[in-house]
Amino acid sequence: MSDARLDWEAACSAVDRARSILIVTHISPDGDAIGSLLGLTLALRERGKQVTPAVDGGVPEHLRFLPGADAVQPKVSQSRWDVMIALDASDEARIGDVGAVGLAQASLVINLDHHPTNTLFGAVHLVDPQAAAAAEIVYAWLERLDWAIPQTVATALLTGLVTDTIGFRTSNVTPRTLAVAQRLMEAGAPLHELMVRTLVSKPYSAIELWKHALATVQFSDGVISGVVSQEALKQAGLKDATDGGLVGLLSSVAEACMAAVFKELADGRVEVSLRCKPGFDVSQLALELGGGGHAQAAGATIDGPLADAQARVIPRLIAHLNGRCQHVRTVGE
Amino acid sequence: MSDARLDWEAACSAVDRARSILIVTHISPDGDAIGSLLGLTLALRERGKQVTPAVDGGVPEHLRFLPGADAVQPKVSQSRWDVMIALDASDEARIGDVGAVGLAQASLVINLDHHPTNTLFGAVHLVDPQAAAAAEIVYAWLERLDWAIPQTVATALLTGLVTDTIGFRTSNVTPRTLAVAQRLMEAGAPLHELMVRTLVSKPYSAIELWKHALATVQFSDGVISGVVSQEALKQAGLKDATDGGLVGLLSSVAEACMAAVFKELADGRVEVSLRCKPGFDVSQLALELGGGGHAQAAGATIDGPLADAQARVIPRLIAHLNGRCQHVRTVGE
Repeated sequence: MSDARLDWEAACSAVDRARSILIVTHISPDGDAIGSLLGLTLALRERGKQVTPAVDGGVPEHLRFLPGADAVQPKVSQSRWDVMIALDASDEARIGDVGAVGLAQASLVINLDHHPTNTLFGAVHLVDPQAAAAAEIVYAWLERLDWAIPQTVATALLTGLVTDTIGFRTSNVTPRTLAVAQRLMEAGAPLHELMVRTLVSKPYSAIELWKHALATVQFSDGVISGVVSQEALKQAGLKDATDGGLVGLLSSVAEACMAAVFKELADGRVEVSLRCKPGFDVSQLALELGGGGHAQAAGATIDGPLADAQARVIPRLIAHLNGRCQHVRTVGE
Repeated sequence: MSDARLDWEAACSAVDRARSILIVTHISPDGDAIGSLLGLTLALRERGKQVTPAVDGGVPEHLRFLPGADAVQPKVSQSRWDVMIALDASDEARIGDVGAVGLAQASLVINLDHHPTNTLFGAVHLVDPQAAAAAEIVYAWLERLDWAIPQTVATALLTGLVTDTIGFRTSNVTPRTLAVAQRLMEAGAPLHELMVRTLVSKPYSAIELWKHALATVQFSDGVISGVVSQEALKQAGLKDATDGGLVGLLSSVAEACMAAVFKELADGRVEVSLRCKPGFDVSQLALELGGGGHAQAAGATIDGPLADAQARVIPRLIAHLNGRCQHVRTVGE
């Protein structure tokens, strides 16, 4: 599916008629999932609708500063809703347990998403793969409904835009994205503060983790790689297995065509994150390793120990490049 | 000076009448200096003007990919110009040797800048401290002249916007900045490519440098600091003394109120870069050390060796904080 499937009229009239609305988003929610959820919830409440926002597990800690975050339900009990709206979720499985309840109990399901792989579940579709974020579609909807945008709604939606585009840095940012961001700023959303909070600011533990991880970096034959061991996580005082953004850092190296980060899990298995420059493809290798993903970003969880995992993956990345990395232009300085 | 000083009519009629125009910008030019220089040069040439763009030393290597970069003169010989336009330079000294020639030889000087400290040199002023970049003022000028914006001009100007705002992340970005960026994208400027080239992409040597520099990081009493030694630069294969963005990384740490990077110069002296969170001020200490700067970002070059420099500066930063850092909220995760 590549074309937009935008049933604006049906969507507008459905929320207009509805009294009770359940809004859900994808599990393991990111900034766009939560920003869209909160923005739409607050906008509908302004119009007097009875809205239940929900996502399995609730709002992640780092997004709880957003207006309305406290009202998000981590679970829902059996109830009836006139409408369920699913946000930023490409299929029914992605909306988790709260979504399953809603699918069974809501009279009508509206599916709002920007993933090209959306399965078009639900009765009414606001699916636009050209949108850089789900929040961009929520904004377009509110604009069509001709509803005023209070500062709280603008702040939630701009968080969605900013996080999903890594601060307007992804290739799917269009002039429309910037126009929406402009109007959200005009409605009072604090762009600078949101950028700092969600993209720039990092905990000291991330620096400690990088200290250890950068010491492991190897670069040869176009492939740059690094390791995050349980020991490094422990020394950085981190409980969850995170790479602290290491794969993003390594994939920004101009001379490298592929980047790989090997993260040791508590059970000894190894999570491999793969990235590559346009013109290459890491999704096939990820698939062969039992994982999946996109051409430029993919991953898999494989057996350890770390050294074995590296020995199994890196030569295959180099073989895939097959000497074709030498022509990558070095940009920057 | 806080108000805009915008003589649009005088500026428009001056370039309209002019046949020969010298355009200069500040020495050690950054992306906004070069982007504004090239954007305005190409736009004026489209209108048949005879334009000489110049900056001492020419265009830095990492900005030579921009359209028109080859035409920029590193020196100018004595000549006559109807108009000189100085871009992004707060005073006459900042426009270097080429600017000095222009000041002596041009019949009229137009001063276009966004620094609040602009001395209002020259006869005609396009000085707007509210603009996030000089390129934003160049765009406003072209809009007022009602000139079409070719893709080359749009690309140069968007480079200015993107680099000076670190990808729309600085606190001076306004809805107007985003509106200008939107129109430049519509005119064909490749936002994503410019973001990658100027902000994301880094040379492998930067990773090598961080390897060594992160190992030196210390964090106590609200002050985070690190060292870039000549040895580290050598091991990373770098000739010029650069911190590879280290001070930016350290100042993004949520729990730190101040960041300091100590960079050893070839002659043994030490360049100190200081950053702090809003509510604190590092400019006074920089001044006392014989340097200068702004409240949130300042620096000085002091005597070495490194350990002495650290011992002289860090306690003074901690004393300045005076225990007030404990209340800084930890944001992000």
